[in-house]
Amino acid sequence: MDMKPLFLITNDDGYQSPGLHHLIQVAEEYGDVVAMAPDRNASGLSTSITTGRPLRVRAVGDEGKLLYACDGTPADCVKMGLEHFCPRRPDLVLSGINFGSNASINVIYSGTIGAVLEACLDGFPAIGFSVLSHSPETDFSACLPTIRHILEQTLSHPIPAGSALNVNIPRLPAEQIKGIRVCRQAKAAWVDSLERRTDPIGRPYWWMTGKFVCEDPREDTDEYALRQGYVSVVPIRPDFTDFSAMETMQYIEL
Amino acid sequence: MDMKPLFLITNDDGYQSPGLHHLIQVAEEYGDVVAMAPDRNASGLSTSITTGRPLRVRAVGDEGKLLYACDGTPADCVKMGLEHFCPRRPDLVLSGINFGSNASINVIYSGTIGAVLEACLDGFPAIGFSVLSHSPETDFSACLPTIRHILEQTLSHPIPAGSALNVNIPRLPAEQIKGIRVCRQAKAAWVDSLERRTDPIGRPYWWMTGKFVCEDPREDTDEYALRQGYVSVVPIRPDFTDFSAMETMQYIEL
Repeated sequence: MDMKPLFLITNDDGYQSPGLHHLIQVAEEYGDVVAMAPDRNASGLSTSITTGRPLRVRAVGDEGKLLYACDGTPADCVKMGLEHFCPRRPDLVLSGINFGSNASINVIYSGTIGAVLEACLDGFPAIGFSVLSHSPETDFSACLPTIRHILEQTLSHPIPAGSALNVNIPRLPAEQIKGIRVCRQAKAAWVDSLERRTDPIGRPYWWMTGKFVCEDPREDTDEYALRQGYVSVVPIRPDFTDFSAMETMQYIEL
Repeated sequence: MDMKPLFLITNDDGYQSPGLHHLIQVAEEYGDVVAMAPDRNASGLSTSITTGRPLRVRAVGDEGKLLYACDGTPADCVKMGLEHFCPRRPDLVLSGINFGSNASINVIYSGTIGAVLEACLDGFPAIGFSVLSHSPETDFSACLPTIRHILEQTLSHPIPAGSALNVNIPRLPAEQIKGIRVCRQAKAAWVDSLERRTDPIGRPYWWMTGKFVCEDPREDTDEYALRQGYVSVVPIRPDFTDFSAMETMQYIEL
């Protein structure tokens, strides 16, 4: 008996996010789904894991759906789903659809991408999907043709071993998306990232804020593709080695 | 008037950790120090940032030392220190000395390295130091000759732009450390990472645990150097692009 593909799905916006439910819906067209997502908004958690307290899981799926809420991080959800809640080895781990861009250096803070990198370390092909909109009115259905194409391609051509995909989708009606481009991560920075305020009794506090500044002029980057109206696909891997710097740093050896 | 070098120092074990105080002590031999560290153990927080609540900072230094405790993550501490607490542009951002290895794939979970990657994104040269010991009896003074050598080399030969250093130190008396090797990040995995238990009223919970398995046979890795008794120095950078996978993935374009 042929088994259908199995997808493990998570996100960082929490199990109630419409982006997660759209991703589950489209994955169900191709196979079976187990979803394990944070029980709250867990944005900005990168690849953090929970070591100082135990984790709990609640079943929250309607109509027999295998949807679980975990009080850990997105990376915790991937470990938990893979080790304890998937009935068989998943064919693909999916994360998203995230509210807001994970292009360029946003990968480093993203819980959506943290989950993808965790799956990759665990030996599973994985894809993170994000849409360039933070609006509660976001039309996630405009992302579905892109996601269908990428799932079909990935089920027929395996992602290179040890790699994963970071997919960002412009905020455009589906018919206005120009195409899909394989890209590199753009260089950028968040500037003025902490705003100082004063509380009613005169003590300072700071809010994370900041302005995203991308001055990378290269045309093979994710930021460039997105500005042109394309979906960006960046193959990513959890190896931080800077090989070019390795070659120039022998002076530090003893 | 010549300014002394300025070091911004943080960690993920918290402002009271002896590893932080040893790192401050050795940096003060070379210049001025501002230290901004988490107000508690913040291990495993990767490059996470705090967006859902404001941040607070307390001055906790004795005898006029510029030591601050922040209720955010290690990456938050770097942003806070750079933007609001350094009297001038730091010459180098340091993180550590961490209790326990940040070699191989541990970089991806490490708050110590999260702080280093944040500094690197912000355009600062940065170095993370870790010692391969979790014992409260750890002799951090055995790390100091290594750290002096690396600081001296880094102050005279700038780290390549856009790169940072992940330094791991074996748990050995200083005179038994064989030398320093520039390495790549070893491939490895954490297996069986969540242990299921049952609480007194019969409900399940899970603890993060796991076994580190490194079967990477290559002799240019950090794990190999450390096993041989060398300090490992891995140049790292916050660009996750898998360039070799980029070349093979054109089939996904539209």
